[in-house]
Amino acid sequence: MSVETTATLARPDPASVATAVSILKQRFGDRLSTAAIVREQHANILTWLPNEPADAVVYAESEAEVVDIVKVCAEHKVPVIPYGTGTSLEGHINAPVGGICIDVSRMNRIIEVHAEDLDVVIEPGVTRKFLNESLRDTGLFFPIDPGADASLGGMAATRASGTNAVRYGTMKDNVLSMRVVTADGSVVTTATRAKKSSAGYDLTRLFVGSEGTLGIITQLTIRLQGIPEAISGGVCTFPTVKAAADAVILTIQSGIPVARIELLDVMQVKAVNAYSKLTLPESPLLMLEFHGTEAGVSEQSTRFGEIATDFGGGPFQWTTKPEERSKLWQARHDVYWASMSFRPGAKSIATDVCVPISRLADCIEATQADIAEMGIIAPIVGHVGDGNFHLSPLIMMDDADEVARVKIVIERLVHRALEMGGTCTGEHGVGEGKIKYMAKEHGEVGLDLMRKIKHALDPDSIFNPGKVLG
Amino acid sequence: MSVETTATLARPDPASVATAVSILKQRFGDRLSTAAIVREQHANILTWLPNEPADAVVYAESEAEVVDIVKVCAEHKVPVIPYGTGTSLEGHINAPVGGICIDVSRMNRIIEVHAEDLDVVIEPGVTRKFLNESLRDTGLFFPIDPGADASLGGMAATRASGTNAVRYGTMKDNVLSMRVVTADGSVVTTATRAKKSSAGYDLTRLFVGSEGTLGIITQLTIRLQGIPEAISGGVCTFPTVKAAADAVILTIQSGIPVARIELLDVMQVKAVNAYSKLTLPESPLLMLEFHGTEAGVSEQSTRFGEIATDFGGGPFQWTTKPEERSKLWQARHDVYWASMSFRPGAKSIATDVCVPISRLADCIEATQADIAEMGIIAPIVGHVGDGNFHLSPLIMMDDADEVARVKIVIERLVHRALEMGGTCTGEHGVGEGKIKYMAKEHGEVGLDLMRKIKHALDPDSIFNPGKVLG
Repeated sequence: MSVETTATLARPDPASVATAVSILKQRFGDRLSTAAIVREQHANILTWLPNEPADAVVYAESEAEVVDIVKVCAEHKVPVIPYGTGTSLEGHINAPVGGICIDVSRMNRIIEVHAEDLDVVIEPGVTRKFLNESLRDTGLFFPIDPGADASLGGMAATRASGTNAVRYGTMKDNVLSMRVVTADGSVVTTATRAKKSSAGYDLTRLFVGSEGTLGIITQLTIRLQGIPEAISGGVCTFPTVKAAADAVILTIQSGIPVARIELLDVMQVKAVNAYSKLTLPESPLLMLEFHGTEAGVSEQSTRFGEIATDFGGGPFQWTTKPEERSKLWQARHDVYWASMSFRPGAKSIATDVCVPISRLADCIEATQADIAEMGIIAPIVGHVGDGNFHLSPLIMMDDADEVARVKIVIERLVHRALEMGGTCTGEHGVGEGKIKYMAKEHGEVGLDLMRKIKHALDPDSIFNPGKVLG
Repeated sequence: MSVETTATLARPDPASVATAVSILKQRFGDRLSTAAIVREQHANILTWLPNEPADAVVYAESEAEVVDIVKVCAEHKVPVIPYGTGTSLEGHINAPVGGICIDVSRMNRIIEVHAEDLDVVIEPGVTRKFLNESLRDTGLFFPIDPGADASLGGMAATRASGTNAVRYGTMKDNVLSMRVVTADGSVVTTATRAKKSSAGYDLTRLFVGSEGTLGIITQLTIRLQGIPEAISGGVCTFPTVKAAADAVILTIQSGIPVARIELLDVMQVKAVNAYSKLTLPESPLLMLEFHGTEAGVSEQSTRFGEIATDFGGGPFQWTTKPEERSKLWQARHDVYWASMSFRPGAKSIATDVCVPISRLADCIEATQADIAEMGIIAPIVGHVGDGNFHLSPLIMMDDADEVARVKIVIERLVHRALEMGGTCTGEHGVGEGKIKYMAKEHGEVGLDLMRKIKHALDPDSIFNPGKVLG
């Protein structure tokens, strides 16, 4: 797929790139690679966006090294592309005009745990699973779970969230402060460790979600939560997506503090039944989790069951026993592999939108109609407490006609979400893939403000060119 | 008090100001006033910062009118100062170099209630009490409560919060989207109504807390909550501030979803005892509120009582009965008037800081030592779940020596908070009064980024000059 929006990007002077690479090679030796395989692995390989490698990959091991690299690139006006784990889905790590990829995965130290303050200071290459394993003895955990074992720097950069954002928020809500290397190689600390502040512009939230286009994150202070004393989980079938969505709305209106609430559509249920040898009714399915005390999660689960019944759903099968809970949630854990085995040989390419929850059922049902009309296979799974859902078409990539039909469905989906007052992406980010929807979502005035901010903070456009704004 | 930081502000050309006022007078007639009394009432009158009136006050009744005013002021490079209810505490509404004050209090319509989506679209002059009264029939409410019956536009502009931020967050967490008039008179919509988004820079959070220095808010979409089925509230005495703070820390680590947790220090307890004829022990006092189901708030209250006992506090007296709860919380509601009557003739000037909660007891105790050393009267009340507390010195304003001693205590307090990893203001904002601490809090790199953003969005510095950055 050609990425029209980046076609007009200014290319750096090849001689400048060569100079920067040579200076950095001198400085970093074996930790700088220009091997094609390394460069390709550090660009997009997960979707149908093209693989656009940087000219070199440097493995940074400290903030001081990131500063050095940025200063060299700034001096020679060479692009800088940050890389964490490479699990983003909209081409964020591509280098459409080349440049230097800074791999921060070796910056993976946990610097300070502040148990009393419920926060932790980490380097950007720390992944969420490693973080939670390291925290286990403290009784605390970091709740955001986007699925992939992503780096926290990357999660902050893309404003990631996932299954339990309905309870714990997104990265926007869970980053207290960051250290960021700016375009002239200075380092800014975006905020203090105070839980709240009214002291000036919100630099933290400016960098969260900026996808590496305003600076390179070198440290994060993030909020932690106490590990809940009890967790209940369960599954509940509904006659229609509308009935399931109505149950979700009433649950949230009632103030039931649901921790996760996931919707699987009929096609997704069929896929997990086949893969995991389950016998779930072939009907829309909600999967829920509640966090709290034993009494609290029991009460919440019972109340949800009553709400489900009111909307023709249920019975809500739930348990607080970890093993049984895992079995009930098996379907959710197997979603990806179930989809893959549902159509062997196909590539699964995920996209996401988020709409006001009152429009969720309409948005999903209209999309299902498109899927049927276009004759594609595309299961839907949603973090429906937030009105966020994923469409994951299973595509035979050598069938150009099928690829074209999938693209029509996605195009219609995004425009529909925007027309319903929603956003073109709830949690995947813009990268290269969704730049084309930005004008419709933000209007020319909004885009103009974003461009002014970009230009003010990165006048030579060295940071991750061709992303977010094109 | 002279405001040194604004001394170097560029003054607008008096002829340009006269031209702008005359054009606007033509357009707005009686809705523009140049009367001294009106102009003075629209500048700071609540603190010891000087009263710095604008050249004229215009009462805007629609977004289109705000656009008109901004366009006239932009053309003539005349300052624009937005005004909601005038309840801010750091001189945010002052006009140190004159200009046009836009009073948006008549823009007070509730535009759309989206009960299913738990959000509401309002004009910026809607006050929080009016909003909650209007919402009563929906079963929903807006939780943020800064004390004053402030306008929502002003609350967003100052990133306000208050007693229940520990449960519901601050304005940063509760504004979904805004419409804002920018420096060239364009109107930007900062985001969609989706509960979360990863689509580009976070314009909403950029304007929240920008104190009118980047644009004028003309509409807000804010999150609502279901009114809790049950509320329990109570009071609990502790031997020391440290014991109270330790109980707060363990409560939050345990994941008990406390809705409010307020600390009154001994001096404040004495004041409310005297004023409200209570017989509270003269010891640090925590006042708590829990929101949830009957069973839930009962369990939470019991658990907190156990934690209190572990730290030598208690017994925790609590109830779910509204009348008894009001009686128990009487002390909190009377704080302001109790303080005033504690020292008749004195002016109460509130300041606030916020520190990591692990440092809260140290910060308060060191401040109490300063208060004793300087021989001033200054009760402390804190939203301690967030590490945020207020010092409210009662000052005889004609006693220059006392005023000087109060200023020493405040100066030490702010520097102490910053040295403890906290912020110079948790919820009051910067305005004019706290500009002098911004460099210490954010460093030169942070301030430089803020200045670049300000310059990019407001190149002629027409929006609220002399605030936030000076």
